Amino acid sequence: MIDPRVASGLRDIPPSAMIPRERMTATFRKTFADFGFVPIETPHIERMEVLTGKGAGSDEVLRQIYEVTNKGGERGELALRFDLTVPLARFVAKHINELGRPFKRYAIGSVFRGERPAKGRFREFVQCDFDAVGTESVLADAEIAHVIHAALAAAGVPAFTITLNNRKILDAMLGRIGLAGQSGPILRALDKLAKVGRDGVVKELTSGGTADGPGAGLSPDQAEQVMVFVEAGRGGVEVLDRASESLGSIESAAAGIANLRAIFDLLGAAGVPPERLRIDLGLARGLDYYTGVVYETTIDGWEKFGSIASGGRYDNLTRLFSDQPLPGVGASIGLDRLLALLEEAGWSKGPATTVPVLIPYFPGAEARHAVALAARLRAAGIGTEVYPDAIQAGKQLQYGSSRGHRLAVIVGPSEQEARTFNLRDLTTREERKAIPWDDLEAEVARALEAGSGAAR
Amino acid sequence: MIDPRVASGLRDIPPSAMIPRERMTATFRKTFADFGFVPIETPHIERMEVLTGKGAGSDEVLRQIYEVTNKGGERGELALRFDLTVPLARFVAKHINELGRPFKRYAIGSVFRGERPAKGRFREFVQCDFDAVGTESVLADAEIAHVIHAALAAAGVPAFTITLNNRKILDAMLGRIGLAGQSGPILRALDKLAKVGRDGVVKELTSGGTADGPGAGLSPDQAEQVMVFVEAGRGGVEVLDRASESLGSIESAAAGIANLRAIFDLLGAAGVPPERLRIDLGLARGLDYYTGVVYETTIDGWEKFGSIASGGRYDNLTRLFSDQPLPGVGASIGLDRLLALLEEAGWSKGPATTVPVLIPYFPGAEARHAVALAARLRAAGIGTEVYPDAIQAGKQLQYGSSRGHRLAVIVGPSEQEARTFNLRDLTTREERKAIPWDDLEAEVARALEAGSGAAR
Repeated sequence: MIDPRVASGLRDIPPSAMIPRERMTATFRKTFADFGFVPIETPHIERMEVLTGKGAGSDEVLRQIYEVTNKGGERGELALRFDLTVPLARFVAKHINELGRPFKRYAIGSVFRGERPAKGRFREFVQCDFDAVGTESVLADAEIAHVIHAALAAAGVPAFTITLNNRKILDAMLGRIGLAGQSGPILRALDKLAKVGRDGVVKELTSGGTADGPGAGLSPDQAEQVMVFVEAGRGGVEVLDRASESLGSIESAAAGIANLRAIFDLLGAAGVPPERLRIDLGLARGLDYYTGVVYETTIDGWEKFGSIASGGRYDNLTRLFSDQPLPGVGASIGLDRLLALLEEAGWSKGPATTVPVLIPYFPGAEARHAVALAARLRAAGIGTEVYPDAIQAGKQLQYGSSRGHRLAVIVGPSEQEARTFNLRDLTTREERKAIPWDDLEAEVARALEAGSGAAR
Repeated sequence: MIDPRVASGLRDIPPSAMIPRERMTATFRKTFADFGFVPIETPHIERMEVLTGKGAGSDEVLRQIYEVTNKGGERGELALRFDLTVPLARFVAKHINELGRPFKRYAIGSVFRGERPAKGRFREFVQCDFDAVGTESVLADAEIAHVIHAALAAAGVPAFTITLNNRKILDAMLGRIGLAGQSGPILRALDKLAKVGRDGVVKELTSGGTADGPGAGLSPDQAEQVMVFVEAGRGGVEVLDRASESLGSIESAAAGIANLRAIFDLLGAAGVPPERLRIDLGLARGLDYYTGVVYETTIDGWEKFGSIASGGRYDNLTRLFSDQPLPGVGASIGLDRLLALLEEAGWSKGPATTVPVLIPYFPGAEARHAVALAARLRAAGIGTEVYPDAIQAGKQLQYGSSRGHRLAVIVGPSEQEARTFNLRDLTTREERKAIPWDDLEAEVARALEAGSGAAR
């Protein structure tokens, strides 16, 4: 016998977790589509060269890459994708002439990273990406935040905050204190603020380097100036006034400040509640390739889970594949992290079935009636399951209760004779008897509406 | 620069193909769920041992397997799944005690086979599987055919035929002419009837073997008896009467005949039109593990494309992983083959956008009004895209026409002043002017309804 376990770091997703998961991806697809984003799909397998091109992934991600080989293929030629951004860049570089601009796409799919297994971290996980490529417009910048808001609101996430920054502002401040061109390690250090606290960040800012990579090597005074700027830079639009006073004379900083102002204005016009939005001038989003607005999203009260929807603007998506620079802006929702959080917070509960009605195969009755009644209910838009085996009726009803079916339509031999059914509420165990078959759709619909509101 | 091509045998799926594809998978999910099937997901990566266990895949499939290795992992330990059935078997063997019986699951996902690249054949393709595990009931047998019918009908496939057989009947016939226990090569030969014709099958039946594998080694007389039986065995339920006369005294054949009769009876009760169903006593479905009913589905007039939904009953799904035998029945819809056929037949046409309305960013007007009007339309359930760049209005409208947007809501500087909009039909180029903002939702909805019926 072969052990039926999954490989280390991977997992099976059972129905109880898949049902809310499918509901959420359907909600995201609908939201993305409502804004005119269109779907694409790229293969799970890419050519190794595409994935390992300079700057495609961080060193850490490249260490975690899964190589793929088939019989007759050379080793080292193919690998599993580790995100959906590199495939987007390749796709756009290949197809931009047919696609036209702007090209707004979404993609939902599995990505693979051989990370060290840990609680809640898996080597295959799903990203939900949406990007507007080929436009530098602030409308596109605002729309990405708008879509994050619309998607999470539609998914029923109770309260969340979208934090924005523009990298130009942070870069200008670093330039002013003599740190131009050294942003990489500083940004990576600032990114850890929530995780390691102020002292931890200061330590990393002033460090000369660790095994993890180069430190920022700032003087204690420079580190203090960075921290003061960052700490004063959190809040509503008013923090932009302060930033404008100190940095407004630097052209790039002024552009970054104007960009954030315009985004807030457009989001206000779109009806996004201001309390969902926040500025954090220290928000860096470690990745070096962001050049303008950056986004991060946390669930209120669950900030320790980290960001569940992040992204930003980049100058040149296709630099690895094409001479033609192509700017864009986008974000990615981490489906697994979001669902894990909702489950831990107790916000995701639901039945383990997708249908509200069970029709038992009553011992002694003819199955064809059960099948015909079920087909009528489905035609009326009411999902219905027929139990396939004529085992003891009580066991069939127990199956329904345990899976979360709400009603059972029961046709035993005597009901079959009289062309009636009994309608049993599987929660309250109340049973109405001898309802004529003619009334099936109306009576079941009424009972479902009267029920506790647990919808399909 | 890195060449942005995909690896050999793989492909990108652009929006024009993805939009009907997502519509179809959503339809399938809803259909499966309406019958009480619940979704599961298993990893794309499985342990090699699970995939290569005896009988898990055919020799051909195993030759095409993609091996997966990450840094620190041993070669030969992991591989990409080549179907969704072996992962189901592993999943069920691991979880059956929590899941209970019957366990009805569906799964939609990519599978990988390193086949020789050819037109229309890709190394990554999507299967849509649904199975009822842990029941021997004929209700489950009938339900699988019912779901095939409901899914294809809901997906708008115009006319198709589900062909059924029961392997017990064919096996009994082979036993009668002295060929018991030799069914494997005979079934594989019969499977090719549509492809190689009668003479080709007879040749393979009488052959002693080829490079592809052992032949059936039948005498010309035996081969003729097989062919006569098979040729007389195609049609409606009436072919069961003839089979009953010749084989009804053999217990297993009688059981197979009764099973098919009961399936036809239940499908009739469920309202499946009889002209969609057909019996073919020679239908084998090459795979050795089918033991009862088998299904195959062809699109009328496109039989040469082969089956687009196939499956059958098996005695013991989990034999590789567990001592506890677990029967079941299921089928798989080949999404890629079905979509390729619909496209080739000209039955799948649609716009390259997911939304009906475009709002240009009119030069000289404020973007915030475009954004606010778009948010109102979306809130009214009307998907709306805002063009992000204030380029020449004509170019923006051309973008809308070329993508299949149906209406443009135009707010130039003078309309902005008057708080009105112009509503342009992008197909007819008619434009109604000076409609008040207050009437936005009502007027757009009316114009969409009046339109040519091209739905979202």
